[in-house]
Amino acid sequence: MSLERMIKNMAGDAKRASRAMRSLESGQKDDALLKMAERLLSAREIISAENQKDLKAARDAGLSAAMLDRLTLSEPVIGAMADGLREVAALPDPVGAVPGMWKRPNGLLVGRVRIPLGVIGFIFESRPNVTVDAAALCIKSGNAVILKGGSEAIHSNMVLGRLLAEALQEVGIPEKAVQVIPTTEREAVNALISMEDEIDVIIPRGGEGLIRFVTRNSRIPVLKHYKGVCHIYVDQSASLDMAKDICFNAKVQRPGVCNALETLLVHEDIAARFLPQMGKQFQRAGVEIRGCPKTLTLIPDAVTATESDWPAEFLDLVLAVKVVGSMDEALDHIEAYGSQHTEAIITNDYDRSQRFLAQVDSSVVLVNASTRFNDGNQLGLGAEIGINTSKLHAFGPMGLEELTTTKFVVYGQGQTRK
Amino acid sequence: MSLERMIKNMAGDAKRASRAMRSLESGQKDDALLKMAERLLSAREIISAENQKDLKAARDAGLSAAMLDRLTLSEPVIGAMADGLREVAALPDPVGAVPGMWKRPNGLLVGRVRIPLGVIGFIFESRPNVTVDAAALCIKSGNAVILKGGSEAIHSNMVLGRLLAEALQEVGIPEKAVQVIPTTEREAVNALISMEDEIDVIIPRGGEGLIRFVTRNSRIPVLKHYKGVCHIYVDQSASLDMAKDICFNAKVQRPGVCNALETLLVHEDIAARFLPQMGKQFQRAGVEIRGCPKTLTLIPDAVTATESDWPAEFLDLVLAVKVVGSMDEALDHIEAYGSQHTEAIITNDYDRSQRFLAQVDSSVVLVNASTRFNDGNQLGLGAEIGINTSKLHAFGPMGLEELTTTKFVVYGQGQTRK
Repeated sequence: MSLERMIKNMAGDAKRASRAMRSLESGQKDDALLKMAERLLSAREIISAENQKDLKAARDAGLSAAMLDRLTLSEPVIGAMADGLREVAALPDPVGAVPGMWKRPNGLLVGRVRIPLGVIGFIFESRPNVTVDAAALCIKSGNAVILKGGSEAIHSNMVLGRLLAEALQEVGIPEKAVQVIPTTEREAVNALISMEDEIDVIIPRGGEGLIRFVTRNSRIPVLKHYKGVCHIYVDQSASLDMAKDICFNAKVQRPGVCNALETLLVHEDIAARFLPQMGKQFQRAGVEIRGCPKTLTLIPDAVTATESDWPAEFLDLVLAVKVVGSMDEALDHIEAYGSQHTEAIITNDYDRSQRFLAQVDSSVVLVNASTRFNDGNQLGLGAEIGINTSKLHAFGPMGLEELTTTKFVVYGQGQTRK
Repeated sequence: MSLERMIKNMAGDAKRASRAMRSLESGQKDDALLKMAERLLSAREIISAENQKDLKAARDAGLSAAMLDRLTLSEPVIGAMADGLREVAALPDPVGAVPGMWKRPNGLLVGRVRIPLGVIGFIFESRPNVTVDAAALCIKSGNAVILKGGSEAIHSNMVLGRLLAEALQEVGIPEKAVQVIPTTEREAVNALISMEDEIDVIIPRGGEGLIRFVTRNSRIPVLKHYKGVCHIYVDQSASLDMAKDICFNAKVQRPGVCNALETLLVHEDIAARFLPQMGKQFQRAGVEIRGCPKTLTLIPDAVTATESDWPAEFLDLVLAVKVVGSMDEALDHIEAYGSQHTEAIITNDYDRSQRFLAQVDSSVVLVNASTRFNDGNQLGLGAEIGINTSKLHAFGPMGLEELTTTKFVVYGQGQTRK
């Protein structure tokens, strides 16, 4: 059977499964998630054995220690996956909610009802535990999902997918609601993103290259962000202690993630009081500062920022710093170089706080808080399958509700159109 | 200047205009719409002169009388465009609404705020008055728009675009917020749908060929429906008088539109009482019936339906009719052949009405009402820029709110991530 035919069959199976999932009770979905947690814990040895195959191949291929660490399904990681399943089971079911209902002058009662999207194609490069996290959110929101993970994790992903499908079957949900593509061939991605008749949305998670490839070639709508070039603007009215805490947290707490700070913009009126101390604090933590000419005069060991540093997502202990003459200059800089992901202002000026919130065109805009809060859990969505920086469907972190849509239901008494 | 360079410049201008439009007051946008209405009325002769150029070319090219009629900007059509602008001005502004705001345990106040999408690329084949209708909705929702109309209406579209832009300038809104692409070259569509850095969404309206082309080739998210293969299922418990009124209205009132009835499904228990009379009523109105074998025994002049009739969007006085043994058979038929656009059940059975509403996966599902109600105005959205049958962003008719998205705003007091 050709690869394309296999993916087509999987997509057809997923579509049929999704039809059954439309009318599942919440309890049945939650049961499935709890059974999945049990199965993962009781199958620890089986999971570990499959994971060892991936780890051996990775070692043979000379992958870095960091990569091997990310690939490892240790006891604590398996425990965390099971906990994650139980947490998703405990969240409210988004399906069936009625965000609005109204009566028309002709007596028609018109409502919007929340429904699953249908079939989700999830393409990822990250750790194998993402298989479980993503499947949990898809099942809870009533969707079927087809997962295509990284080739280095194929055995781990497949055994996890099989355990999840078995749990579905145990509670009477079609097992094809969770399917892992059983091949490492890159062409599987091309096939998956062309199944427009079966798949409703593609969510890619990984490097910018993968995401651009998927976006350019998909016939199916894609929810994604390319990168997070996050800015903090420290206003002349800012509490400098607060500014230091927030900027340090945003850059250093976890530099390798998309909501970490990449460029710091500082108003010139406070630059001389703020940047020398801030610079020292960063440099003590090993952060390399790449600054504009004014920054270089205030942070001795900073290096000169080049034009390519302003739109850069360093994902590392590197920070671009620029002194600006006004908030408008900061807004222009963000407009020119930002990625519409996350931007924050540190200020005690009421008017400028409001203007920054209104004018910055990013999925999350914060006043006096760390950019690291752009996260579904942190913002109160309960969970997160990813962040979307295209404006369509869901701008920002996507939780369970963002894996649904609404349809119109109309209750009539014989009405016809005049 | 190359075509691609010209479109790139237009897209850049639109993006800059959209930045200014983010923070417009409602009153300023409404002023612009009212000034547009005035300008159209006072420029009737100029509009008519440009329209005559298109009409002459169309006559020379041998276009049908129906096509010429659709192309004509008569005094009543110009009056209707002005009325449409005033109606959109009177609608509530969707921008700035806060659909939700909540406090997190750490004290962060998190809210969702409704914002414009940004820049909309609108590609259409229909009458030139659509230029005005679409621009009005985009401006009211705070978006910039680039319009690419049909080549046969180029002079009409361009003069309308110019008048709208002049009205924007008059009230201090960047005139580049409304731009009509000044060429009939088909390649302009390819260029437009590749401007992913400037344009946020593409909305195509026209034939299925155009829409499939745009969806396959766009790098920008697309909101669209291919076709409307709308079904009515007449249940064994239906009031047959009500069923006749609704089916007749859905098929005959305006057969050339996407929410018109295309396939009628009838429960076998009432087929013998319903179809002979219904068939006569349809045939008196000139409707050709293409039926299943059972239908043929009940409607004498019906012709045999072929497999290609079931997924067909006739857009004409043609109707496919099938007798089914159960509602489940009707649901299976809709699942197999429907277009997820609009489906209705005629019934007096409570349980089946609820089951039909829950299980049919279409953007609008109705009980005891005509499919013709799938329309933004009719459902109470105030206006409509189109209907979307992909699940993403907005499933069903799209009004002003569907031309916006939400971003997260976060009010902190110095919070950092633990």
